[in-house]
Amino acid sequence: MSKPIDFYFDFSSPYGYIASQRIDAIAIKHGRSVNWHPYLLGAVFKVNSRKPLPEQPLVGDYARHDFERSARLYDVPFKYPTRMPISGVSPSRAYYWVHDRDQQTAKELALTLYKAYFVEDRDISNPEQVADIAATLGLDRSGTLSAMQEPAIKERLKRETDAAIARGAFGSPFVFVDDEPFWGNDRLDQVDRWLATGGW
Amino acid sequence: MSKPIDFYFDFSSPYGYIASQRIDAIAIKHGRSVNWHPYLLGAVFKVNSRKPLPEQPLVGDYARHDFERSARLYDVPFKYPTRMPISGVSPSRAYYWVHDRDQQTAKELALTLYKAYFVEDRDISNPEQVADIAATLGLDRSGTLSAMQEPAIKERLKRETDAAIARGAFGSPFVFVDDEPFWGNDRLDQVDRWLATGGW
Repeated sequence: MSKPIDFYFDFSSPYGYIASQRIDAIAIKHGRSVNWHPYLLGAVFKVNSRKPLPEQPLVGDYARHDFERSARLYDVPFKYPTRMPISGVSPSRAYYWVHDRDQQTAKELALTLYKAYFVEDRDISNPEQVADIAATLGLDRSGTLSAMQEPAIKERLKRETDAAIARGAFGSPFVFVDDEPFWGNDRLDQVDRWLATGGW
Repeated sequence: MSKPIDFYFDFSSPYGYIASQRIDAIAIKHGRSVNWHPYLLGAVFKVNSRKPLPEQPLVGDYARHDFERSARLYDVPFKYPTRMPISGVSPSRAYYWVHDRDQQTAKELALTLYKAYFVEDRDISNPEQVADIAATLGLDRSGTLSAMQEPAIKERLKRETDAAIARGAFGSPFVFVDDEPFWGNDRLDQVDRWLATGGW
């Protein structure tokens, strides 16, 4: 079995959400697994002065249209959230807290959080909502709530974000196949082809 | 025959160049023609404070890698130009000057200018180079040179750029199929599918 591929995403990112519905199936076809890495695009935007797409003049209306069109193309349920963007701090912290004990449950938590935000219009920047959602997966509600305030978990998310940026990630989704970087949901077909062919 | 599709591009854009090698073949498959519209992304960047990809912190190295990888994927000759980005003013003016007399030659001129910049590393922001290149297509060299300084042609490019932005274009390439907008070389597969299916 080859090295897992790495999937970086921000919980507020529609293209990250769409990619989350596709990436494991693509990897599995080629005998690979996927390591999921939520991180904070806000830290990227501090360095490169970009803004989230919906907030960019001229780009905003198109971005919203393209999120919805892309979701339909890939048959992914999608409802534009009332609040957009939101902070990914709380859901990302919860993810890493769970991840250190059970990687599969952490991935399920990420998928459930994404669905809560992009299908059910729940505000997953709110720690109470995150804890409610974690509880539906059998995770301890108050344990999740206090974990999101633990200094070690706060530090962990900072470290993961710094490591992602140091490796070259600056968007969501951002995928590395071995060390080959791919930015964007619209690069997943190339990820598929790269895995099939070993590159071009 | 249905309405032509509209292809907006900036002469300094690698993805615009790659798309220029693909767009007509995609349209022809579906019984469509393509209207080409060079415009100035600099005017967009003034409004939305974006910068060309190679100049964005974190993004630059990836962008350069992705230009080359995309060119290989689509089997398009590509050599990263010594000067990047450049102003598209002179080649765009020459394009519109030719276009008003002969649309097919204007398209050939655009393709030849793109090739000069992205394959032969010639600086097509230089009016002398543009006139040399126009001459290889049988266009009058000194006529091309003086056209690029004509007030009516200068005004024409401004008007085309304003019209592109008013319609919603903000990148290169940017394609409209009827009024459906598609941003990026990586959306051309969707353009193909949209033309085949009428949308989704």
